[in-house]
Amino acid sequence: MTRQQAFGRRTVAELLETGLEVYEIFLAAGGHGQTFSDLKSVAERKRIRIVPVNRAEIERMAPGMNHQGVVAYYCGPLILEVEDLLDLITHQEPHPILLIDSVQDPRNLGAIIRSAEVLGGGGVIIKKHGASGLTPLVIKASAGAALRLPIASASNIDRVIREMKDRGYWVYGLDADGEKQLWDMSLTGLIGFVVGGEGKGISQLVRKRCDMLVRIPQVGKVASLNVSVSASIALGEWLRQNT
Amino acid sequence: MTRQQAFGRRTVAELLETGLEVYEIFLAAGGHGQTFSDLKSVAERKRIRIVPVNRAEIERMAPGMNHQGVVAYYCGPLILEVEDLLDLITHQEPHPILLIDSVQDPRNLGAIIRSAEVLGGGGVIIKKHGASGLTPLVIKASAGAALRLPIASASNIDRVIREMKDRGYWVYGLDADGEKQLWDMSLTGLIGFVVGGEGKGISQLVRKRCDMLVRIPQVGKVASLNVSVSASIALGEWLRQNT
Repeated sequence: MTRQQAFGRRTVAELLETGLEVYEIFLAAGGHGQTFSDLKSVAERKRIRIVPVNRAEIERMAPGMNHQGVVAYYCGPLILEVEDLLDLITHQEPHPILLIDSVQDPRNLGAIIRSAEVLGGGGVIIKKHGASGLTPLVIKASAGAALRLPIASASNIDRVIREMKDRGYWVYGLDADGEKQLWDMSLTGLIGFVVGGEGKGISQLVRKRCDMLVRIPQVGKVASLNVSVSASIALGEWLRQNT
Repeated sequence: MTRQQAFGRRTVAELLETGLEVYEIFLAAGGHGQTFSDLKSVAERKRIRIVPVNRAEIERMAPGMNHQGVVAYYCGPLILEVEDLLDLITHQEPHPILLIDSVQDPRNLGAIIRSAEVLGGGGVIIKKHGASGLTPLVIKASAGAALRLPIASASNIDRVIREMKDRGYWVYGLDADGEKQLWDMSLTGLIGFVVGGEGKGISQLVRKRCDMLVRIPQVGKVASLNVSVSASIALGEWLRQNT
């Protein structure tokens, strides 16, 4: 657990609901609107220190970010070990796990985590190197979902898949050239979906390790779906089959 | 048809494939990589004027944008009248039309158009006022799809829905509180999906005009799906039922 930054009204509002320890909230002078005053009263009720500052100071803390005049510092987020995340999820009802093989764009990573949280994903495993980490921008882009959903990081996604298979998971790689259509798959039991990076997709080694490569049919002339959309459609299909 | 700007390597590459008239392409000196040289040779083959400039000049043309050293000017895009778009689509195989009621964020609008193009959408109708228009940033965020897909703009979405109903369309509003689940719907024939703005959703008047409000089940604790993800899941479900 380390000192982390969160910004944006909704994200900080989410943060206050997580139970994570919040050190202080910096609010730009002159902020108004419902979310802003709700935020203030929740923080006051929870006895979290509110520091009124001018807008330039907020800008210095989160330069160039869509901070909406709100920055908070808190203890977390808890990035789990892969083993712990799998233990946690396997003992609950089976919810699919998303494995993220090198997504670079923090907005995409945040969007994936947001969809995973909303559509019943059990957790997200992120590659440690050569990919976006769990930065404040990712947390903001996830609309705070990154503060709720179990997230682990792994240096080797291939090894994670082997571990998951040992535990009885079926691991499907989402790939535009996949041999089977997503909606021809029976998505019951313990499921993992692997999504690859923007442009290059899933790395060779990881592709081979998947139980199957699965495609979402694409009928347009533009190359491919955005990675966060692919992940969301796969999770949506899981939810469709499991509700 | 007016003089429009496009930027970004992939977007400009897409632009060259559309058949739209491209006036010139500005390339930053020192650019390299496969996409960059491909772009250059395609432009040369098509006898489009290439203007080498320094990076600062590109930055001046598209300030703060992720232009990747490439800016092009072209004639278009063709924003259709609603009537013309409906004529165009009704005479082809029935592909769903997306109606966009006040999406503010150009990235979201671009993402919706991208998914629509990839997942078999027939066209997109955008609200004219109080919403993001078809700006260069939208075109970039659409990965060029906005240059391919028929797009119309309308000042009054309510009136568009009435017109579509007269033509035999079923128009469904995507709404977290919708009475029916998306995957309980039979999505055959002429279909329109309405998506609302970030935060507020579909406006009251438009909600009432829809044949039905349809929900994508959301099982997380975070408020709602991103609007572009909702649209993509609806289109994905249409494609699932129609392939």
